[in-house]
Amino acid sequence: MASNQHVKLFGTVRSPFVKRAEIALKLKGVEYEYVEESLSNKSDDLLKYNPVHKKVPVLLHNDKPVCESLVIVEYVDEAWTGYPILPSDPYHRAQARFWSKFIDDKVFPAAFKAAWNPNEKERDKGAEEAREALQILENKLKGKFFNGDSIGLVDLAALYIAFWLPLIQEAGGLDLYSGEKYPKLEKWGHEILNHPVVKGVLPPRDNVLAIYKTRFQNISASK
Amino acid sequence: MASNQHVKLFGTVRSPFVKRAEIALKLKGVEYEYVEESLSNKSDDLLKYNPVHKKVPVLLHNDKPVCESLVIVEYVDEAWTGYPILPSDPYHRAQARFWSKFIDDKVFPAAFKAAWNPNEKERDKGAEEAREALQILENKLKGKFFNGDSIGLVDLAALYIAFWLPLIQEAGGLDLYSGEKYPKLEKWGHEILNHPVVKGVLPPRDNVLAIYKTRFQNISASK
Repeated sequence: MASNQHVKLFGTVRSPFVKRAEIALKLKGVEYEYVEESLSNKSDDLLKYNPVHKKVPVLLHNDKPVCESLVIVEYVDEAWTGYPILPSDPYHRAQARFWSKFIDDKVFPAAFKAAWNPNEKERDKGAEEAREALQILENKLKGKFFNGDSIGLVDLAALYIAFWLPLIQEAGGLDLYSGEKYPKLEKWGHEILNHPVVKGVLPPRDNVLAIYKTRFQNISASK
Repeated sequence: MASNQHVKLFGTVRSPFVKRAEIALKLKGVEYEYVEESLSNKSDDLLKYNPVHKKVPVLLHNDKPVCESLVIVEYVDEAWTGYPILPSDPYHRAQARFWSKFIDDKVFPAAFKAAWNPNEKERDKGAEEAREALQILENKLKGKFFNGDSIGLVDLAALYIAFWLPLIQEAGGLDLYSGEKYPKLEKWGHEILNHPVVKGVLPPRDNVLAIYKTRFQNISASK
């Protein structure tokens, strides 16, 4: 890599979306400067580099911004050589894109609805939708990781299920995920959480749990 | 292209998502068999090849299915040589992915909400969101097409705005799109609707308009 490369990542420490970008950069061995953002007081840089969504992560590569976590992961895979994050075969690439999109379209909205929707019926519906989406992923998973023996795009997309989802479930007393119901996802979760690169970027478990608990308590107190 | 290639596209004649896949195949000069699906009576093949979403389009390439319209377009671009649908530069590829995702995440849900949500306030909110998203695209558009002089991924994603959105607006008496408010989108719309490949795959305008009108009348009658 040329030494005149300047790479900056704007993120927040507990975001599953930011972790996708961080892990991608680390898998490639890209050196980068990390900038912690405050979502309650967004920096001028964040608003400048992601004026459309005003969200993290934003990757800045030689002053050019790339936004949206999965777009960033694909960009990192294409802009740097080394560790392949997407498969090289067009059909397997399409599958990786399909499943990472599935996670963003089905798992996240369902889990958010199950946890935070003000309407109890909607929360129940969200939990049901989350369990259905997890079952589909359980059925899809064949190897150690989603695309075989090494972690790739879908694993980065699905990391939420291994780390954040069990914590949100514990904090809110929800019924979304269970190791017994999804044994393959459970095994995959152990693998990915113990991957050295992943392990190195995850926030402390207790800290995330405490924040979720506070959020559930605040909702409960305001009812 | 090898003569042993077998390419099949499952679609419905009026779907903007199916048209993306059809145009991509035609831009590449890929010969394919087209299968019209009935969404009220889905075929066994559709359920078999897209068991997760049970939706069109589905591309079948030598018996291997690819689902999700933008995933199909990228697959077609990677699996066949010839006309480049995505740019070759990683940064421009990332931009194309960002904007096509923006259209799917922001324009479609807003327009659907504006047209079909049972709650009037929600419909107004949808119309407002649609206008905001269109303004962002208007500001983004610089050249003849979204990525310069030839049509690519973002144009295929945005085709809905040129063809279907004005029809849904006319049929429902909505206030979403106007050529005066979005002069660059208007000019782009003329260009893309007159592109020979696009022209060749679009359904008859009057037919789509009549179907939307009937749908609005049915909603109105059931109130």
